[in-house]
Amino acid sequence: MIDSKFHQVSNTQEFNKYENINNEVFLNKDIFPDLHLLDGPLKVYRSKATFDWRKMRLIFDTLQSWELKFKIWNFIKNNEIFDQSIETLPIDEQRKISNQRMFAVINAKLLTIEEYLRNPELSPKFFSAFGVYDANITGKVLIAFYMFPKVIQSLGNKSVKNLVMETQELKNIGCFALIEFAHGSNTQGMKTTATYEPLTKSFVLNTPNFEAAKCWIGNLGKSATHAIVYAQLYTNDGKCHGLNAFVVPLRDSKTHLTFPGVTIGDMGEKISINGIDNGFLIFNNYKIPKSNLLSKTGDIDDDGNFITQFKDPKKRMGLSFAMLSEGRVGICEFTTSYGVSAISIAIRYSASRKQFGPDDTNIEFPVIEYQSQQYRLIRHLANIFAIKFFSNWIAKECAKIVIKGFSGEKISTESGMEMHAISSAGKPVCGWITRDCIQDCREACGGHGYLKCARLGDLRNYNDPNLTYEGENNVLIQQASNFLISIREKGWNAFENASPLETAAFLKDGEEILKSKWKWTKVECAMKPENQLQTLNFIVAFLLEKTFKLRNLLKSLGQSTFDARNNSQVFHANLLAVAYAHRQIYVTFLAEVQKLPDSSPEQEILTKLLSMFGANLISTFYMNVLYESGFVTSINACELLQTGILQLLPIIKDQSIALVDAIAPPDYILNSPLGMSDGEVYKHLENFIYQSPDTFTRPSWWRDIVYKEKYLGLSKL
Amino acid sequence: MIDSKFHQVSNTQEFNKYENINNEVFLNKDIFPDLHLLDGPLKVYRSKATFDWRKMRLIFDTLQSWELKFKIWNFIKNNEIFDQSIETLPIDEQRKISNQRMFAVINAKLLTIEEYLRNPELSPKFFSAFGVYDANITGKVLIAFYMFPKVIQSLGNKSVKNLVMETQELKNIGCFALIEFAHGSNTQGMKTTATYEPLTKSFVLNTPNFEAAKCWIGNLGKSATHAIVYAQLYTNDGKCHGLNAFVVPLRDSKTHLTFPGVTIGDMGEKISINGIDNGFLIFNNYKIPKSNLLSKTGDIDDDGNFITQFKDPKKRMGLSFAMLSEGRVGICEFTTSYGVSAISIAIRYSASRKQFGPDDTNIEFPVIEYQSQQYRLIRHLANIFAIKFFSNWIAKECAKIVIKGFSGEKISTESGMEMHAISSAGKPVCGWITRDCIQDCREACGGHGYLKCARLGDLRNYNDPNLTYEGENNVLIQQASNFLISIREKGWNAFENASPLETAAFLKDGEEILKSKWKWTKVECAMKPENQLQTLNFIVAFLLEKTFKLRNLLKSLGQSTFDARNNSQVFHANLLAVAYAHRQIYVTFLAEVQKLPDSSPEQEILTKLLSMFGANLISTFYMNVLYESGFVTSINACELLQTGILQLLPIIKDQSIALVDAIAPPDYILNSPLGMSDGEVYKHLENFIYQSPDTFTRPSWWRDIVYKEKYLGLSKL
Repeated sequence: MIDSKFHQVSNTQEFNKYENINNEVFLNKDIFPDLHLLDGPLKVYRSKATFDWRKMRLIFDTLQSWELKFKIWNFIKNNEIFDQSIETLPIDEQRKISNQRMFAVINAKLLTIEEYLRNPELSPKFFSAFGVYDANITGKVLIAFYMFPKVIQSLGNKSVKNLVMETQELKNIGCFALIEFAHGSNTQGMKTTATYEPLTKSFVLNTPNFEAAKCWIGNLGKSATHAIVYAQLYTNDGKCHGLNAFVVPLRDSKTHLTFPGVTIGDMGEKISINGIDNGFLIFNNYKIPKSNLLSKTGDIDDDGNFITQFKDPKKRMGLSFAMLSEGRVGICEFTTSYGVSAISIAIRYSASRKQFGPDDTNIEFPVIEYQSQQYRLIRHLANIFAIKFFSNWIAKECAKIVIKGFSGEKISTESGMEMHAISSAGKPVCGWITRDCIQDCREACGGHGYLKCARLGDLRNYNDPNLTYEGENNVLIQQASNFLISIREKGWNAFENASPLETAAFLKDGEEILKSKWKWTKVECAMKPENQLQTLNFIVAFLLEKTFKLRNLLKSLGQSTFDARNNSQVFHANLLAVAYAHRQIYVTFLAEVQKLPDSSPEQEILTKLLSMFGANLISTFYMNVLYESGFVTSINACELLQTGILQLLPIIKDQSIALVDAIAPPDYILNSPLGMSDGEVYKHLENFIYQSPDTFTRPSWWRDIVYKEKYLGLSKL
Repeated sequence: MIDSKFHQVSNTQEFNKYENINNEVFLNKDIFPDLHLLDGPLKVYRSKATFDWRKMRLIFDTLQSWELKFKIWNFIKNNEIFDQSIETLPIDEQRKISNQRMFAVINAKLLTIEEYLRNPELSPKFFSAFGVYDANITGKVLIAFYMFPKVIQSLGNKSVKNLVMETQELKNIGCFALIEFAHGSNTQGMKTTATYEPLTKSFVLNTPNFEAAKCWIGNLGKSATHAIVYAQLYTNDGKCHGLNAFVVPLRDSKTHLTFPGVTIGDMGEKISINGIDNGFLIFNNYKIPKSNLLSKTGDIDDDGNFITQFKDPKKRMGLSFAMLSEGRVGICEFTTSYGVSAISIAIRYSASRKQFGPDDTNIEFPVIEYQSQQYRLIRHLANIFAIKFFSNWIAKECAKIVIKGFSGEKISTESGMEMHAISSAGKPVCGWITRDCIQDCREACGGHGYLKCARLGDLRNYNDPNLTYEGENNVLIQQASNFLISIREKGWNAFENASPLETAAFLKDGEEILKSKWKWTKVECAMKPENQLQTLNFIVAFLLEKTFKLRNLLKSLGQSTFDARNNSQVFHANLLAVAYAHRQIYVTFLAEVQKLPDSSPEQEILTKLLSMFGANLISTFYMNVLYESGFVTSINACELLQTGILQLLPIIKDQSIALVDAIAPPDYILNSPLGMSDGEVYKHLENFIYQSPDTFTRPSWWRDIVYKEKYLGLSKL
């Protein structure tokens, strides 16, 4: 059983501090393979690296993370059930295999539920290690064997806690039923009901119509035995007490048939991740015992009355949803891992693939030698480093809060709200950064990037749901802008105490910041991290002030709060939230760089990547804001940044293979003939294509070609 | 047989002129269904339209186009072989069905090869009508039954022309073998050889290694009987005469087995469009008769010498490739049709889907009522109208050139080169516009947009190869910038005669344009089409001058032409080419708007869409250029455009359903429960999900859950 001794803050040894790196660490050849021994087209680039890619590996992530990841990757490598099929399998087959993989993972006890609860900071890394190979496993395992028991453990009463133990014994498969076909982000509008029946001391669950069917429930379609269902609780007096969570048994443990009163349907094929059986759920007078109400936030007393310590039903559910809010933090790590794979594939391919050369010669250059290709890829390389540092930071901060919550310690409202805000902006922005990275990588690999085996399509599809689940991105970012504006309403100095995580604390000097100006006339100055940060500070402050003023104006013109909020999104609150996330990503990147010894080769190249990240960010998204605000008055500000980018491209290009070596998963996980660490693209492509059983066969339907009369008759119908 | 009488310019009656529209036309209920009779959530929006959506339909495309499209769509609707499967089928099954559909289409003679050759302007519409339903058909049919016979007809000698007739009789399936695994855009680097053997009067084909295998050949993997192969022609004296095209028999017409000396492999699974069997091709001393050389551009004489009228081998292949260059023009139409479907789905869904409402009420608003959602979608609606007008224009202009070429009339070098340039920039830019449109539509539909049946994933995947085939986009656009710079080198007034299609003729006033300034201080002025065009003219001229100067500077610093070209791409030539296409898209849109009667309701709404398109374009991509150049000196220029956008959003929103009605294909082709014309999202979703045979079944592998011991044993291995 889980007990309080697991709820202490973990004492993770921090190996990502440069000083702690010793050469003994490098003896682990899983994490630090002898890439320098490889011949082939990447050798020349590896020899150009000015830094030690192994040290960079430990800056990018902690040794503990890498060890955990390789534990998983070795498990995958050594377990035949994880062998990839050559071709996409039929959906039912994908689900069958995903179910088997799920059980194999849990049975191997790679991360026990105790370790999961004790180390919330590590769990995103655990799940992303699976995800980058097979996103199906991440979803199935996380929902059924980690989130499900955790929510019961923390919100349920004693009589349902046996489910936690049973789940650990693999007797149950859990899932979460929150959204309905007609209501997603707007949880208040949900229609599934749980009506208390005093006579039988039970709740009667009902789904009024198809629109109110719970949907998109991962694990439900074919496998779940239990669900945590969020329903409007009605007492016998007809009064509604808002959304509450219930544990609901769904399928018989012997026959796996649904219980009478429960209808489960499968959502069918999705764009990707079809190994997860998303389902929908309809209740028809289905009774569950009173004790199945997860009663920590509200309960039914002996007289059949609903009692709760929370007066505001929204706040009550707020606490319950907080349990799920770690999801957004996890997504930052997941999406980063897809971006890491994509950029690794595209950069290695571009250093291997040769095309064109000086006129009237037979020389051909690797395509990464072309400025155009460098710009396409290297800005994304910088972006991926940036969101990785951000993911690490947010996971650590979120873990502190979660652990406090679990141990019963009081979580400050400020840090809870700030985590909500920064994760609500960070998850969308990381997801979009990865989305654009993968797409550019796909295109940068040309036609071969369109092969399924190149894996860029898979990665794109894996990342795709990140953009709309756990809060549709454009709706979600409003949480961040609302957070900032609600503090601004109290005055700039309110930021002093409202931001213990320091994502917005700088705004206490808002007035000063708004007076600051772009004063750089040289490329070096425009590219300097401190100056870029100053620019980003200004951007956030300016957009906040602009949005704040517009809302006040709209209200003064008679618009309701609701309308004023909605009518100040485009070019205002939307951009504010994005800028707030961009700045925080920049800050976490900068903090990592500053931790390194001054002038170490690792610090030097990371500073260049940081400058690239900032220059690209500012010149792509924010020049309009900088001109419009008067922050920039010189006409060459953008040119300084762009010149800085152009100067950095060939320099970072020479280091890019080593940078990718530092972040890429091993070949058998990356699993793309275009992105193998030896760069032998055509050999791997040939191997992959030749091993497919259908490559050279005459099609079984060859008679449809030779004897088409039968067929043509049909078409004349 | 094809003869010259087909090569006259078609006298397409132009129905897209407003005056020609008469009410009799509207009696065709296929094209003009009674949408006003539909109840449901979209009715309120339809009633808000200020214009006649049926007239808009005929502005968006010609009546002739719509009639052709509905001929195809009715054929699809009435032919059981086109029924969509609920779930993605195994690849071999997809190919079998695609093969059957291909034959069904050709057998139905919906567009004979004669009509195809006579009406090159119409053919993109023909193929896109299939493509929007099933992109596999477009590719298979176009390659095998239109492009293959056309190239033989135009480049082959008499002895191979029998293949044209045979193909019409469905005896052959053709394909094109150009690129090799290691060489795509750089055709000069290809290694497949065809060596002339005087003794046997034959060519011996050889593939030196896997890297030189011809690849990505559509139709080859499983079905083709013949290929047009591009190989380096060697004469007996060991001299290479560059790439030449040959007709090569591949498979036995009785057994469908490959001939000895020919190895055909299948490329395997791709990101999408797996009904097309892309293959690769390896020759091992494979002999073909001398007459199989497509000899119009060069031949072997009786002494075994290579003779050609072209001295420069690049120019010779240029003529041959010109036959294939219509491909880019076709892609503009194809990609537009995917964008049309995506935006239709997303806008209808957003007008049907309700979420949130004023605080403390039960009212919920359709999500399109939110500014944030409007901005996401309406700019893409404007973009799609814009690229549609551009696609129509470029198809018409290209058709004129192609028809001239076929009829033996001299094509002016200028118009050929200009078409090459504008199609090389237009295809990438249209593809990217659609890419971003589909992605935003996918996200704007939230979770339900992630369902396969929503079709946004399919549309994204259909569009994906457009970005890299027929020239990888980033490589391809260099053709356009090179074109502009080569003229600029002769002086601004060289544009006077170098641009018969008028895509660049305005640059003859380059010097004047570069002196022009942004002088607008009101939103109305910034949004005025003439003023936006003036701004776009400046942008192109400025970027051209900037790139031209940088190249000269780099050369003066000692860089070769090759290096100077490559080092002036990012922020220079790349952006120039994109701006050149953007401007031309804008011009074609403006021209259509100007054709309409002044102040007609159709002109009014299209003018708003045009202003939206321009304002979004300029403020998103070019503000940096405008500030940096000194064109804009006032700090509120961008704000004027953004205010204009914000003002237009709610106005266009009210018209957006009618605008979508004007462009959307019928429901059975659009084929998405989210985008049906009645807006009954949940009913259609329920219908779709319930009809799947697997929705409610217990999985066949349920014992893997209930009796997992066997399974867990395995995982302990």
